[in-house]
Amino acid sequence: MPFTNRITQLFKIELPIIQAGMVWVSGWELASAVSNAGGLGIIGAGSMYPEVLRTHIQKTKRATSKPFAVNVPMLYPDLQAHINVIIEEKVPIVFMSAGNPKTWTATLKAAGCVVVHVVSSALFAKKAEAAGCDAIVAEGFEAGGHNGRDETTTMVLVPLIKKSVSIPVIAAGGIATGQQMLAAFALGAEAVQIGSRFVCSMESSAHIHFKNAILQSKEGDTQLGLKSLAPVRLLKNDFANAILALEKEGASSNLLSEQLGKGRAKKGMFEGDMQEGELEIGQVSALIEQIQPAKDIVHEIWKDFCAAVNHLKSISINKEF
Amino acid sequence: MPFTNRITQLFKIELPIIQAGMVWVSGWELASAVSNAGGLGIIGAGSMYPEVLRTHIQKTKRATSKPFAVNVPMLYPDLQAHINVIIEEKVPIVFMSAGNPKTWTATLKAAGCVVVHVVSSALFAKKAEAAGCDAIVAEGFEAGGHNGRDETTTMVLVPLIKKSVSIPVIAAGGIATGQQMLAAFALGAEAVQIGSRFVCSMESSAHIHFKNAILQSKEGDTQLGLKSLAPVRLLKNDFANAILALEKEGASSNLLSEQLGKGRAKKGMFEGDMQEGELEIGQVSALIEQIQPAKDIVHEIWKDFCAAVNHLKSISINKEF
Repeated sequence: MPFTNRITQLFKIELPIIQAGMVWVSGWELASAVSNAGGLGIIGAGSMYPEVLRTHIQKTKRATSKPFAVNVPMLYPDLQAHINVIIEEKVPIVFMSAGNPKTWTATLKAAGCVVVHVVSSALFAKKAEAAGCDAIVAEGFEAGGHNGRDETTTMVLVPLIKKSVSIPVIAAGGIATGQQMLAAFALGAEAVQIGSRFVCSMESSAHIHFKNAILQSKEGDTQLGLKSLAPVRLLKNDFANAILALEKEGASSNLLSEQLGKGRAKKGMFEGDMQEGELEIGQVSALIEQIQPAKDIVHEIWKDFCAAVNHLKSISINKEF
Repeated sequence: MPFTNRITQLFKIELPIIQAGMVWVSGWELASAVSNAGGLGIIGAGSMYPEVLRTHIQKTKRATSKPFAVNVPMLYPDLQAHINVIIEEKVPIVFMSAGNPKTWTATLKAAGCVVVHVVSSALFAKKAEAAGCDAIVAEGFEAGGHNGRDETTTMVLVPLIKKSVSIPVIAAGGIATGQQMLAAFALGAEAVQIGSRFVCSMESSAHIHFKNAILQSKEGDTQLGLKSLAPVRLLKNDFANAILALEKEGASSNLLSEQLGKGRAKKGMFEGDMQEGELEIGQVSALIEQIQPAKDIVHEIWKDFCAAVNHLKSISINKEF
């Protein structure tokens, strides 16, 4: 009997490995490749106009017969059009993030979607469960991109959220390998959501300069910044260093907004400006060493997870007290 | 056959559970209780004058026939007298922290001590191995007390350090339960160092007000502060909030030093001033729910670790690719 748990049953997938929805990085090519490999691929709607999102959904449907999802970060004011596209296109699974789970869950559930909410605290996990969500992504401080203010790490956040809700928990933040996936399972997660490693897939639409910068990155090369606006973990470059310096000097949110300007994420991650672009990536980038097909990433993580389980099984324990 | 690995062999202990050396908290009573329970107890020398340290070492020897250690944080200028006491008293194991592993390792090794260095980066782990240390403590961002500047979390730090050194790695930061201990083992650790949970032991010399504040603490109640002096994770109180506010406004290190003043840690952790004292504790405090004898803490963590291993064994995996 193959692997099965509440998450594989909920999403109707083979492996409890989920590729994070990421702005400018995860379009139909990446999402369909991950779903075809047995995991769950997610289209990142945050960088797409509604009709662009529709095109990506339709292309994903043509590229895979397996379940896939759309991630909608609630950082932007008017999401009705995106939600309409998702419902019209009968997207089976929706991951909502960076907002209040009350806002859209009922609408999406009524339309037949499985709804997952991404949270960075037990408080919001409880709100998501109360709002009717089917599962939770618990995203730790080490994760790339937008993040919580409490700075709770995956090691602490997953057990805290497990104690607070009974719906299944998906761990995110600091996970790129099968060993880290096993650590997440030890903490009580029933699946993992992986971002940074999939940025370095062949199918991701990240610029090759960005992929190469990740391969070269070391410990300490990312930092959580823009805390007074919306906290986000960035690869340090000229832009990030300028923002971090302003924050250290006590700059106002207005000044930070001005410095951020518009189009920074596209400029960095999609267009490959390694100096002035915004580069969202997790701490785990320090562990990523090659650009691979998404399918190989999924299967390598799974193989390493299985090997790590077998290694732990070899621990002999019979010291009783 | 009971549990055995490189750490239990190196320290000659039964269980790979180490109680962190903590200023004002871990004297001879706590250290000997943990060692008697089968783990490794550590006297925290950071808050002791050399002759006070000698007394604690002698009392520990009388209270247990098992191995124990002393932790020396290298934050203070003149440590020769402390090192002399350690050598004269034939302390079997020494944990050095917050400094350069080159400074004391050779001296301590020549005196017959097992030497462990606490680090927060792979860079320093390599330096510790090169200096001749016998093992490494990899301490993540979520840990209480003094911490690194890179903010690397346990989930990422342990695998990074495992890739960088061949001596055994002890994981610290975000660990208070058997499930978290198993997560650390999945990441490649061969033991765990646990601080916060032992603050809430009967035998710790933390003030009862401090212990109670930990029981009541929730997610987001700690923060890493004093980054321009020596980064330290604190429970938020009037003192910590004042420091964090100053830092946010861009205060100089001089102003921060002045605000910190002298004796803050003693005032908070030992004397129980919950408003104006410095309270060093990890993020995992949000998961700690009771004050227990140290022996019960050690054995409960071990029991939960064994149960978590057995739970993982029940995962059926035969989806091959």
